[in-house]
Amino acid sequence: MEVTNRYVAIKHHINGSPKESDFELKSVSLSLSIEAGSNDVIVKNIYVSIDPYQINRMKDHSPSQTEKVAVSALGILPGKAIDAYGVGRIVESGNPEFEKGDLVVGFIGWEEYSLVRGGATDCALRKIDTSELPLSNHVGILGLGGLTAYGGFFDVCKPKKGETLFVSAASGSVGSIVGQLAKLFGCYVVGCAGTKEKVDVLKDKLGFDAAFNYKEEPDLKSALKRYFPDGIDMYFDNVGGEMLAAAVDNMNFFGRIAVCGVISEYTDAEKRRGPSMINVVYKRLTIQGFLSVEYMHQFADYISIASDYLRNGKIHALEDISHGIESIPSAFVGLFNGDNIGKKMVQIADM
Amino acid sequence: MEVTNRYVAIKHHINGSPKESDFELKSVSLSLSIEAGSNDVIVKNIYVSIDPYQINRMKDHSPSQTEKVAVSALGILPGKAIDAYGVGRIVESGNPEFEKGDLVVGFIGWEEYSLVRGGATDCALRKIDTSELPLSNHVGILGLGGLTAYGGFFDVCKPKKGETLFVSAASGSVGSIVGQLAKLFGCYVVGCAGTKEKVDVLKDKLGFDAAFNYKEEPDLKSALKRYFPDGIDMYFDNVGGEMLAAAVDNMNFFGRIAVCGVISEYTDAEKRRGPSMINVVYKRLTIQGFLSVEYMHQFADYISIASDYLRNGKIHALEDISHGIESIPSAFVGLFNGDNIGKKMVQIADM
Repeated sequence: MEVTNRYVAIKHHINGSPKESDFELKSVSLSLSIEAGSNDVIVKNIYVSIDPYQINRMKDHSPSQTEKVAVSALGILPGKAIDAYGVGRIVESGNPEFEKGDLVVGFIGWEEYSLVRGGATDCALRKIDTSELPLSNHVGILGLGGLTAYGGFFDVCKPKKGETLFVSAASGSVGSIVGQLAKLFGCYVVGCAGTKEKVDVLKDKLGFDAAFNYKEEPDLKSALKRYFPDGIDMYFDNVGGEMLAAAVDNMNFFGRIAVCGVISEYTDAEKRRGPSMINVVYKRLTIQGFLSVEYMHQFADYISIASDYLRNGKIHALEDISHGIESIPSAFVGLFNGDNIGKKMVQIADM
Repeated sequence: MEVTNRYVAIKHHINGSPKESDFELKSVSLSLSIEAGSNDVIVKNIYVSIDPYQINRMKDHSPSQTEKVAVSALGILPGKAIDAYGVGRIVESGNPEFEKGDLVVGFIGWEEYSLVRGGATDCALRKIDTSELPLSNHVGILGLGGLTAYGGFFDVCKPKKGETLFVSAASGSVGSIVGQLAKLFGCYVVGCAGTKEKVDVLKDKLGFDAAFNYKEEPDLKSALKRYFPDGIDMYFDNVGGEMLAAAVDNMNFFGRIAVCGVISEYTDAEKRRGPSMINVVYKRLTIQGFLSVEYMHQFADYISIASDYLRNGKIHALEDISHGIESIPSAFVGLFNGDNIGKKMVQIADM
């Protein structure tokens, strides 16, 4: 059987802030059949993840394109399909590990159907049981964003009970999970976000000790001093730039900074202002970059722990879902305008 | 007995680049006698250390002044004596651990005589045996600069044999030791410095694999790419700023950056440009600040190891000695102009 497979592509490389007009919806015809002897599967995609890091893959030249660090860091070519994390249902399988009808999670794409080569190798696809938790949870809190939060908080921040944690982009896909994990662990947690609505969610729904709207703070250093009179032990950085500089100025001795994302640099690399390295020295700070790929071996453990938390109501999945494949460009552009509250994803088909 | 004790002081706080006219030579009369029942000692100072970090103590406001991190980080007051590492001879002792005539090393000051309270508490003073090695070695390669190099290289850089190391300010007091320790350990070592003479010393005397004059390189990123075609595993950073940014762009995955000093920020905090945090994330770099105070428990071990190396000619002490207490201001100002080759110190008395 042949189907029309619609997909979202970039028209050209994108080096600044993305616009909806940088994208186009294309279509190809796809045969829903598997080559004999292959391990391929075809997935009908249901939810696809919309992540800020994709912008780095869309540039005409970036470290993530010239150096192959992870599936999620390969360069994206104009006109071509864009791989992305998500969940879908197997519609054809040449792989003994998957049957038609199985729900799977892994790297599919911003497209209606994905042909996944080789099937179950590595983390490409994994069967999921959705009997208890919503399917969308597997894209967000039980997906790579959750693993990023888990690895970044426990392995990079190396928390001790009673320590203080600051999280930027705290209502985002990763920040919202980091803050909740840290509260459960016994830390004092303050987050920042860009609207009153987001700040309210952090305090009222996610249980942060405090939260503030950074757009209302003319002096970030003073703001952090107010929220952390005794200093910051750990900073989970999703934004870089001025916020990183302000956090460094408020860190305690031997503080740890987990650099997870640098959204301030993604669309404007030239404007970057560095943190005070004098403070890095005198306070003996550690600033460490990391990717979720380092923690793949802990993914099953994390999913098990986080699923329990979800079932017991100890953590909440913050999700922001748009509908229809044609909404992917606006959903993606919206990430850079702060439109989303929680994990952004697009539902492109019914379950 | 009363003596005139001459000392160097700042006339006022210094917030930019230091000038000789910011300093003055003052004198007080000092009684060479110890209060009965005290543990104090009086030291006649022979060599005193001249270190760039002192500029941070001379500012009217700095993290090192408001937060007490180490003896070497307390604020310096105009008109007052300035404590500094150095060696001298006990001239009076109320402390049973020291006798008149003993040679000691520790925190004395930019002055002819130092009254050291409490004597041998902590690392304030320690007796030294100078039967084999020059006394000046105890200020430099066997002093805190050596310990900084040792702790920073082994503990912060966490080297593996065969890895590549880049050192900035490589002919300086710390850089020159880091590079030699790294060569002995089995690393590929490249250093940079600011004159041809320094570069020649690195290559010809200290055994660096390569060295370059950064002032002759219009594009530091390309220069590092040329010297490290396979990338940098470890960067021992003494300068910060543009060099740190260029190093980050050339680091290998999981690279480590030991931030020891930030001379580019010491006299001009406003101009700082940050490294690419995108590269920090994608390459999973660790940037760690540290102070020698963390490694005091390893000081005796380090001195023993380094003394053996010196006796066997495996490492060389690079020293740059001025003479006379009145030369301290010009020696200090010269640090920021790159005048010194190796450990800068001033000899203010004969042995």
